[in-house]
Amino acid sequence: MERDVSQRWAKRENLALLTDYYQLTMMGGYWKTGRKDLEACFNYTFRELPPHNGFAITAGLEQLLDLVENLHFTEQDLDYLSGLGAFDDAFLDYLRDFRTTCSIEAVPEGTVIFPHEPILQVEGPLIEAQLLETAVLNTLNYQTLIATKAARIRSACGSDTLVEFGLRRAHGPDGGLSGSRAAYIGGADSTSNMLAGKVFGIPVTGTHAHSWVMSFENELDAFRAYAACYDQPILLVDTYDTLTSGLPNALTVFKELRAAGRPVRPAIRLDSGDLSRLSKAAYRMFNEAGFPDLLIIASNELDEDLIADLKRQGARVNSWGVGTHLITSSDHPALGGIYKLVAVRENEKAWEPRIKLSSNPAKMTDPGRKRLVRYYDGAGRPLADLIRLDDEAPDVIDPGQPAKPVPFAERHDLSFLRAVWDATRCESLLQPVMKDGVRLDPSPSLKEIRDRASQQVAALPEELRRLRNPEIYAVGLSPRLAAEKVRLIHQVPGVLPAEPGGPSESGGL
Amino acid sequence: MERDVSQRWAKRENLALLTDYYQLTMMGGYWKTGRKDLEACFNYTFRELPPHNGFAITAGLEQLLDLVENLHFTEQDLDYLSGLGAFDDAFLDYLRDFRTTCSIEAVPEGTVIFPHEPILQVEGPLIEAQLLETAVLNTLNYQTLIATKAARIRSACGSDTLVEFGLRRAHGPDGGLSGSRAAYIGGADSTSNMLAGKVFGIPVTGTHAHSWVMSFENELDAFRAYAACYDQPILLVDTYDTLTSGLPNALTVFKELRAAGRPVRPAIRLDSGDLSRLSKAAYRMFNEAGFPDLLIIASNELDEDLIADLKRQGARVNSWGVGTHLITSSDHPALGGIYKLVAVRENEKAWEPRIKLSSNPAKMTDPGRKRLVRYYDGAGRPLADLIRLDDEAPDVIDPGQPAKPVPFAERHDLSFLRAVWDATRCESLLQPVMKDGVRLDPSPSLKEIRDRASQQVAALPEELRRLRNPEIYAVGLSPRLAAEKVRLIHQVPGVLPAEPGGPSESGGL
Repeated sequence: MERDVSQRWAKRENLALLTDYYQLTMMGGYWKTGRKDLEACFNYTFRELPPHNGFAITAGLEQLLDLVENLHFTEQDLDYLSGLGAFDDAFLDYLRDFRTTCSIEAVPEGTVIFPHEPILQVEGPLIEAQLLETAVLNTLNYQTLIATKAARIRSACGSDTLVEFGLRRAHGPDGGLSGSRAAYIGGADSTSNMLAGKVFGIPVTGTHAHSWVMSFENELDAFRAYAACYDQPILLVDTYDTLTSGLPNALTVFKELRAAGRPVRPAIRLDSGDLSRLSKAAYRMFNEAGFPDLLIIASNELDEDLIADLKRQGARVNSWGVGTHLITSSDHPALGGIYKLVAVRENEKAWEPRIKLSSNPAKMTDPGRKRLVRYYDGAGRPLADLIRLDDEAPDVIDPGQPAKPVPFAERHDLSFLRAVWDATRCESLLQPVMKDGVRLDPSPSLKEIRDRASQQVAALPEELRRLRNPEIYAVGLSPRLAAEKVRLIHQVPGVLPAEPGGPSESGGL
Repeated sequence: MERDVSQRWAKRENLALLTDYYQLTMMGGYWKTGRKDLEACFNYTFRELPPHNGFAITAGLEQLLDLVENLHFTEQDLDYLSGLGAFDDAFLDYLRDFRTTCSIEAVPEGTVIFPHEPILQVEGPLIEAQLLETAVLNTLNYQTLIATKAARIRSACGSDTLVEFGLRRAHGPDGGLSGSRAAYIGGADSTSNMLAGKVFGIPVTGTHAHSWVMSFENELDAFRAYAACYDQPILLVDTYDTLTSGLPNALTVFKELRAAGRPVRPAIRLDSGDLSRLSKAAYRMFNEAGFPDLLIIASNELDEDLIADLKRQGARVNSWGVGTHLITSSDHPALGGIYKLVAVRENEKAWEPRIKLSSNPAKMTDPGRKRLVRYYDGAGRPLADLIRLDDEAPDVIDPGQPAKPVPFAERHDLSFLRAVWDATRCESLLQPVMKDGVRLDPSPSLKEIRDRASQQVAALPEELRRLRNPEIYAVGLSPRLAAEKVRLIHQVPGVLPAEPGGPSESGGL
């Protein structure tokens, strides 16, 4: 049986053209100038966290690897490209047999991550690694953004249930589909999105809409009918008026169910009005009627700040339905991830690091193939991260052993140095996930990814988990990487005066 | 040959489960309580424009109709639903043969629209019309949002070219695919998104990335190589330093092309730094070298405000590349559209209007099946819109004839009344697009939709097109609709004291 198009889309089949035009013009140029097999190394990273965030959570790798594995140009793609009139037939012939042979290292999905850290490192022929740029950015930027937002909202919810309701406000069907996946990774307990339930196995939940109530002659009939249909009805009480109509009618129905001997936990949803006042009134009303365990689900333009504030006021809500602000990360709807060339290698010679300069220091790239090392204290709490060159020796990664100290360099401060001294363990975060175009180990299950994210967030110092002005996590460059950066800045012709004897120790790079 | 999955996705095939769980529980409930064939009428509308917007532009209807036309549950969908354990087998059997027989009226894509106006009116069996809710909201909310944002940015660009570059920051692949479509409708001239080019025929454009330059030993070689590959090269000049490196190197190459007799218009892209200062410097440098017609494309976190400000400062930019802020509508990334039941009808009796109440007046729905009428002056400029009941007589819609005056009612003010007096023509905006599940006329081409939007925006009074604090367009309810609303508010049991003799004239409804 043919798989549903929704599953094939989720697996990112036939999406070679999910790319920017300039990737194709560059590929055509690399091909034409005989440079297509120059080896290249690209890093995916982002420069800034969403405002008020102390960390981000990686997500989207699974869909990216699906796309890379499935990457080929169909005849329809080639017809389309041919019709544009910009590409040689011989180049299009080359594309006909295109399959990627790239190798990819990645930080696993569900990992806590910080600005400037390499989340993905792609190596392979320049022409192939170039094509991946747009797919990498489209897939990882969005899912990482939403997983990160979900972790914030999860944190505000405490031990309450968090339900993602965003499909109707998502950016198209896939904004909903991959958004629900990312929200689940970041800490949502379930989704209303049936397609995400089917494709990814995320638990689905829901109640009923106002239209259910409005389709009946009156609200009480509507509630009775709904309770007759489902074992555990959740009644939406604000179609007409919560206090004078919805709550009294819902209470009547749950009393009737109790009288009829049905073992039902009373449950309502509040979708408008003052959720603090109404939830307390609902709790009181049901409690006085001998229902001390009323389940109250709240929704209506909620976000982490509003949830935290309602909880501070003692709102009697047990379950939070969050839509718009989660699925669009509404206060910051795009993660500015970038995919930059960091090194090239010709004919198996040594890798040459490359840099992009900018008048804005944050936009200057970190050159070279890299490792990302996280240092932990004895309790398993992350203390600091180090970005270093791939070929730096001695290799300080030796799980179980105290980490070697790292001298002062760019983006280090005292807290970084102290953290590295205090560390009892370190871990390399970039792990191989694809070798020469072939996927390595099977991906972890979505549940495993979610558990990883949850454990990673729980292990963070609470200063990083604050909803406002969190501490800034220490991320440093190794001294050799920092020196390499300075050396390259001076090497670009015409930009700075030449530096006669630079601080570099890495002439071989 | 099997169609690409990207095209099948764009056509919204196999997407019955692109819906919320509660639609299925309500459908199951309607089915179980024998109410599934109760006739229902739903309206899609939105309550608020994005901040500082005087109007919105409708988009997304084509994809919605594709989805509705293709709507059926696959065996895989049914297996999934069955596994949830919440639904009767007999209901699932019903779903197996599910096809929609709904009729739909819609405001055409590319139409200027305002809050509270019915953009879509769906009629059909309750169980079918209910299922469409999520698809309607997911499709129309996003595309309307992006077409609206694009129209703002288009307005700031004046007669300059506007290129949409958003795929890398879009919310997943379809955020890019349908986002590029909506951006084109709203006024973008082209996109970088190849998939949107292939699937929707949108013109594609692009230059090259920093990686092209960084993959060469130096920038000059990179520029020469690119110019050798393409007839009309556009050179990205900020990889190292725009003023000391990029611009001089680009000028060298364009001089070499001129000396070689190649008829090339010099063209550069600025992607960082002060775009006003740099564009003026670039213009001057090329002008002094005998190139008075330098094409300057600018990009880097642009939005309508920044473009308007740069143009006010005399920036020498001819073409604006806008990504993040367009494709996510970053300052307001969700349109809060809703899909509400407005009337029901049993056994071919008269339609009964239905209302949803709220303590927030803006959240109270307008009951009943409707018409949406737009009044124009002699120059074809829209003056005001009227929302009236479908069966109101006399029918004032008589193109070419002066409109009948409408007495004062809710949401009218003096400007509304004056506008209706001044009108020389009116037009009914809701047009039938689907009858009993069958699509009517073929949809207009994307180009036609874009032209419609452009003409509609051009016809608006300039007060509505301001980027800050635009005038509020006059939208009024007909007196009978307003009276009907008051009557229904008083009818809901328990909410208000009964109104003995209300203002209604519509007892028959």
